Amino acid sequence: MKIRKKKNLPVEEVRRYLEPGPVVLVSSCWKERANVMTMGWHTVMEFSPSLIGCIIAEGSYSHTLIRNSGECVINIPTAEMLDLVVDIGNCSGAEVDKFEKFGLELAPAEKVGAPLLAQCYANLECRLFDKQLIGKYDFFIFEVVQAHVAARPKTPQTVHYTGDGVFMISGQTVSRRRRFRADML
Amino acid sequence: MKIRKKKNLPVEEVRRYLEPGPVVLVSSCWKERANVMTMGWHTVMEFSPSLIGCIIAEGSYSHTLIRNSGECVINIPTAEMLDLVVDIGNCSGAEVDKFEKFGLELAPAEKVGAPLLAQCYANLECRLFDKQLIGKYDFFIFEVVQAHVAARPKTPQTVHYTGDGVFMISGQTVSRRRRFRADML
Repeated sequence: MKIRKKKNLPVEEVRRYLEPGPVVLVSSCWKERANVMTMGWHTVMEFSPSLIGCIIAEGSYSHTLIRNSGECVINIPTAEMLDLVVDIGNCSGAEVDKFEKFGLELAPAEKVGAPLLAQCYANLECRLFDKQLIGKYDFFIFEVVQAHVAARPKTPQTVHYTGDGVFMISGQTVSRRRRFRADML
Repeated sequence: MKIRKKKNLPVEEVRRYLEPGPVVLVSSCWKERANVMTMGWHTVMEFSPSLIGCIIAEGSYSHTLIRNSGECVINIPTAEMLDLVVDIGNCSGAEVDKFEKFGLELAPAEKVGAPLLAQCYANLECRLFDKQLIGKYDFFIFEVVQAHVAARPKTPQTVHYTGDGVFMISGQTVSRRRRFRADML
């Protein structure tokens, strides 16, 4: 699988990548232990600081690594990675080294300890911003502190989970820019 | 625009409709004042109780109605409603009656005071479940207390916002059910 060449993206603009609702791969690292998980429950919360809220279930290996390190990387896969996305979500880092098992290409992050998944078309380095809802809802609020995105394709196909093993693949993009009030863009 | 015939859906199953990340229309009502807004920042948070978290900006007319009534309806539009979705998002209920302006067909909800938008293919009646993050992040946690969905089409096209006036339209669905561990479905 090819490695995508990346450029930096202003962190205020990550909504463009996350708001459509793709399944993401979350990589983490704490005390020499590292892992990657598949995640579908997330939302943009603010432009600046660039905040993302997401659910990471207690009891999962990633929950422990991310809660303790206070960091992760949100990697956005494309449709060609669908089988990998499913397989990563169907095993636990407590039992297997997923990076080795799936032969994942890694790249170092700039601001966090967790690795970037090089095959993904966007990598968002995150620091835990607010942990007050972790105990009650497993809800983590992260600040995106560095963002790397592939220059092309401009609008890759992403995968969106609907439950029951079924995914929606993103379709065409359409602009309605002319219908918007200038201050709403 | 046609009115869709609906059936009830167990509230634990609403992730199927929201997890892919569609833009939604949120209707609300408080003290004879009613409104509808376009919203894209939301996430599933739990199956049971069926919890949804979302951002509704302070200062918006809907924020006031929903915060005071503690209720809303999350309505999911299809791609044929895209221009309506844009137009609803580009005006304020403080200045115009959007239901009248856009000729929206309404239906009564069963458990909340806000109306259902009959043209949408899914209507999720919500009660405010946790308000502790409203003050800091405009983040509302709702419990879906009743769900109505159209029997068909089974997988309608939904719209997903990427910012800058550009939308992604949902594409094909693919099953990877056979790759899943039984307990992960």
